[in-house]
Amino acid sequence: MAGNTFGEIFKVTTFGESHGTAMGCVIDGCPSGLEVSVSDIENELKRRRPGAEHGSRDETDIPEILSGIYDGKTLGSPIAIIVRNQNQNNKDYDNLKDVYRPGHADYTWEKKYGFRDHRGGGRSSGRETLCRVAAGAVAKKLLLLYGISLNTTVSIPHNLEEIKNEGDSAGGFVSCTVAGLPVGLGEPVFDKLDARLAAAILSIGACKGIEFGAGFSAASKKGSENNDLPADQADGKFAANNCGGILGGLSTGQDIIFKAAFKPTPSIKKPQKVYHRDGSIKEISIIGRHDICIVKRAAPVVEAMTALVLADFILLSRCSKV
Amino acid sequence: MAGNTFGEIFKVTTFGESHGTAMGCVIDGCPSGLEVSVSDIENELKRRRPGAEHGSRDETDIPEILSGIYDGKTLGSPIAIIVRNQNQNNKDYDNLKDVYRPGHADYTWEKKYGFRDHRGGGRSSGRETLCRVAAGAVAKKLLLLYGISLNTTVSIPHNLEEIKNEGDSAGGFVSCTVAGLPVGLGEPVFDKLDARLAAAILSIGACKGIEFGAGFSAASKKGSENNDLPADQADGKFAANNCGGILGGLSTGQDIIFKAAFKPTPSIKKPQKVYHRDGSIKEISIIGRHDICIVKRAAPVVEAMTALVLADFILLSRCSKV
Amino acid sequence: MAGNTFGEIFKVTTFGESHGTAMGCVIDGCPSGLEVSVSDIENELKRRRPGAEHGSRDETDIPEILSGIYDGKTLGSPIAIIVRNQNQNNKDYDNLKDVYRPGHADYTWEKKYGFRDHRGGGRSSGRETLCRVAAGAVAKKLLLLYGISLNTTVSIPHNLEEIKNEGDSAGGFVSCTVAGLPVGLGEPVFDKLDARLAAAILSIGACKGIEFGAGFSAASKKGSENNDLPADQADGKFAANNCGGILGGLSTGQDIIFKAAFKPTPSIKKPQKVYHRDGSIKEISIIGRHDICIVKRAAPVVEAMTALVLADFILLSRCSKV
Amino acid sequence: MAGNTFGEIFKVTTFGESHGTAMGCVIDGCPSGLEVSVSDIENELKRRRPGAEHGSRDETDIPEILSGIYDGKTLGSPIAIIVRNQNQNNKDYDNLKDVYRPGHADYTWEKKYGFRDHRGGGRSSGRETLCRVAAGAVAKKLLLLYGISLNTTVSIPHNLEEIKNEGDSAGGFVSCTVAGLPVGLGEPVFDKLDARLAAAILSIGACKGIEFGAGFSAASKKGSENNDLPADQADGKFAANNCGGILGGLSTGQDIIFKAAFKPTPSIKKPQKVYHRDGSIKEISIIGRHDICIVKRAAPVVEAMTALVLADFILLSRCSKV
Repeated sequence: MAGNTFGEIFKVTTFGESHGTAMGCVIDGCPSGLEVSVSDIENELKRRRPGAEHGSRDETDIPEILSGIYDGKTLGSPIAIIVRNQNQNNKDYDNLKDVYRPGHADYTWEKKYGFRDHRGGGRSSGRETLCRVAAGAVAKKLLLLYGISLNTTVSIPHNLEEIKNEGDSAGGFVSCTVAGLPVGLGEPVFDKLDARLAAAILSIGACKGIEFGAGFSAASKKGSENNDLPADQADGKFAANNCGGILGGLSTGQDIIFKAAFKPTPSIKKPQKVYHRDGSIKEISIIGRHDICIVKRAAPVVEAMTALVLADFILLSRCSKV
Repeated sequence: MAGNTFGEIFKVTTFGESHGTAMGCVIDGCPSGLEVSVSDIENELKRRRPGAEHGSRDETDIPEILSGIYDGKTLGSPIAIIVRNQNQNNKDYDNLKDVYRPGHADYTWEKKYGFRDHRGGGRSSGRETLCRVAAGAVAKKLLLLYGISLNTTVSIPHNLEEIKNEGDSAGGFVSCTVAGLPVGLGEPVFDKLDARLAAAILSIGACKGIEFGAGFSAASKKGSENNDLPADQADGKFAANNCGGILGGLSTGQDIIFKAAFKPTPSIKKPQKVYHRDGSIKEISIIGRHDICIVKRAAPVVEAMTALVLADFILLSRCSKV
Repeated sequence: MAGNTFGEIFKVTTFGESHGTAMGCVIDGCPSGLEVSVSDIENELKRRRPGAEHGSRDETDIPEILSGIYDGKTLGSPIAIIVRNQNQNNKDYDNLKDVYRPGHADYTWEKKYGFRDHRGGGRSSGRETLCRVAAGAVAKKLLLLYGISLNTTVSIPHNLEEIKNEGDSAGGFVSCTVAGLPVGLGEPVFDKLDARLAAAILSIGACKGIEFGAGFSAASKKGSENNDLPADQADGKFAANNCGGILGGLSTGQDIIFKAAFKPTPSIKKPQKVYHRDGSIKEISIIGRHDICIVKRAAPVVEAMTALVLADFILLSRCSKV
Repeated sequence: MAGNTFGEIFKVTTFGESHGTAMGCVIDGCPSGLEVSVSDIENELKRRRPGAEHGSRDETDIPEILSGIYDGKTLGSPIAIIVRNQNQNNKDYDNLKDVYRPGHADYTWEKKYGFRDHRGGGRSSGRETLCRVAAGAVAKKLLLLYGISLNTTVSIPHNLEEIKNEGDSAGGFVSCTVAGLPVGLGEPVFDKLDARLAAAILSIGACKGIEFGAGFSAASKKGSENNDLPADQADGKFAANNCGGILGGLSTGQDIIFKAAFKPTPSIKKPQKVYHRDGSIKEISIIGRHDICIVKRAAPVVEAMTALVLADFILLSRCSKV
């Protein structure tokens, strides 16, 4: 229950520290008979892999399926996938052993557990999202059977070349659209579709906010402006989608639309003041393989988490009526 | 599992349709020995009660404690609280029987369950939040023992008198600050403190977005601007709180700060086009006891949901270390 | 999470102390469209009601449905049912305030929670099973749609008239047979059908053991004797049912057969030595409305718990294949 | 939710088919700071390993810890352990492809999932218990800190040499005693200590029954015989332990005592009639590396499952009181 399991029926448990032996996930509750191949997973992992242009850590993540798939199909038993860590260059982190990096979980983690794995953030590292993407690849295969597709676009307010030269970092936005959904996905009260999506997306490390449909701007509209009215042609469609495809926590059949805000990477070359473990203030420059901006890499993670939520609700929706 | 239970250790299940016999909640996992009185619950319910100035439904909600409390203290057994519904004037809703109100769950609900309880939205009614507030009142008593306090402020962009005259409705924002938190609340991956808070708040009917600390504006900052650096006096404090009191999904000990956006009430007097069940378009004017703006009433619900999340994590934090 | 919720999809939460205001249950996850009436529930509660011949507590339990059912059908929302306690004659228990009754939860409860509700056992009272029976009545209606039926028989090794004259009490056995099951109910590893049934039945207060099919006697057989072989006529049937209708934790389609052992009621008139709270030994005679034997009353509880397990697995089985 | 996760706070997920790539477990919720080494796990796995005298499958299971442990201590993050399968001699099973072995999950599994992994039973194989033992080894380390110890004894009614010569198999009993428990472990209603232990033990493949303390014999006793009375010396101890150390679902502080019955291995050399997939009856002789009796190997599995239940309740007990 320490929060490494996600979902109720299509249920994913992830594990692995950034600089430990391996990262992995176990999917329990995936129906039998779903076609899944290693390349389905590799393709998604590639999208998450850092591009040279962003100055990210260079990793070739090779997934190994340990169980749950036989003859190219899911067995109904748990699907375990692992990826071994390769660049465990722990020395990079030795100078960070005794300081609490700003914007990182160093201090909070140490207080919570009594000590911390200072090697690259351990479980709080962005590398943890690899497991989400692997699990999401399986969820996407299930959604495909239902004709559901996901699309993300990315917006980064800064010029990354400039940011790099400054030794600084940038944040940005990931917008997600889901098409092809049946009506009525989600559960009415605490497990509203938007509530579960919000939890899914905010559980991604650097995410600081989410809005659905008109979102924050809806709060400034009048009811007559914000309500989505029937389209003139009375064809069952609507003239707008301010609700973002969700009403009362259930999918309306329109596209689901949401936007998530990601903060700039906290690890920067530019010297910063930090607290030392002894309470004093030091100045440090964080070098090593850190992304200037993680937003592009966050997009497939957003898709993966969205797919996990939808796969879970698709299965649960089989139990709504007698 | 149909989404009416919230929390893992401090676990709340709610029930009741808006125009059924009664609303209620059951809290399982509240520790024994906590002082709780009926008036603790009444006081919170009063805050949620509609004020005359907002033209809301007039209800006097009298909570009855059915179990779990004896001699003014919790027993450790489930605490059940019910509130009977009084104004079950179902005729108000007869003209809405065959149309799908814009901005409501009418259509999605009917598709999901095969039919719907058209009496005031059934389980999708805002009245459902009453149970959250009752449960939250108990959670707040637990937080009080830990010196944790919650505060909300409300901002409504429109003039409500004007809105009323126009037969329209307004949305707005609820900002919440939590003070006195220990360091390290929350769980690292899927159950990050912000992820769970996001789910909690987005599960409130009209909420369309949430942001923590600098939130959406953080996405446009540089890392050097967004990182919260030590205060000059090196007293363990920080010069800013852009992270909103949460790093790596764990509380930092600073105040937790978040802001939620609420859409305008979809039920308005102003005539609107709606889909009829037969596919045709009708024009309706929704009369009855509907709030022009629910934002003020949402504030105690936001506090209640926040308290439920924190109570759960407070208990779970007892299991972090050997 | 303090153990008052049962089930994963068809999920029941119960509440209420024996001598508190009311007992009740909330069923979340029951599909919409199931026909359920108050009399369905009353009929099951009647079976649990003490018969005069057994010298049991005289109660007329009137269930009230607070939510989840409208026009005779389930809405898909949580079904809350309460029964008010009537004979709250707390004085009967005053002489037990400072002693730990043998065979009861007095001592364990007090150590766990710091104090106890001495009024008739509070939550550990047999009266708690009333809520299970109410919830089970709804589960049975769902099973009926699938053609599944439950049957229990009771065996009591003692003559109850003699036992009564001795001021003593008796235990016994409840055997349960389930017919009409589809093949494949249950989940392979930790949630085997027999594992979940065992938890369900052992969670009934006085139960001390359970066995499936040949059960304990299977342990003394050879494999060639214990294996259930095809019937001679090769009609898909088997010559025996030593496995009790469950193989690998999944239903085989044969009848499920299990037997549960219930200990004698610990409350007896016959004087017994007990520990006083101060550590000394006292002699007490427990008078009041206690059953000489609860086995007959346990039978509908066994059926209810079995029905809850099966309803849950019936729904979950909808998610096994793509 | 397909039943491969066990526990609420100390939560174990297992995976792996008997003849797939690897078996493994993930433990989430283990507190940080617990000393665990690979040899702790190896020692338990050795106890489960087949002895030559029983004619069991010859395997050397080498556990690899992938995450969650650093510098010999648990980090608080999920602990993943895998063991690669070595003897994947799938040809042994080719003659079983089209028949349903008696006493096995072949038929039930195929009906549930639409097809089956015939290679040695897949997930229904006894090899699955390896993961339980690995996870249990970690749980035992936690229990050790609390002074809790587990002991099992085995009883096999048949002479194994004779059984072997007959080409047959034998079952037997595992008795378990737990010493050093605090008072009050377990939760009052559905999560009684005995209910959870029953689920844990009945989830082990061949188990057909369980009884606590006097168990089935308690049902034939009178209350005055079955109640555990104070010992004469009034030292807080009791003259008997018919309750098996559990009253009202909570530990009493006395030893926990239970006994489990295991059926004989269904795979035997002796020719048996079986159903073929086409409905006809065949006669087969099951050759290969099958145990004549699994009871001795089941003992460490019983201990492991018991340890998992207790570790979970030990942590949950930290949340009972304010």
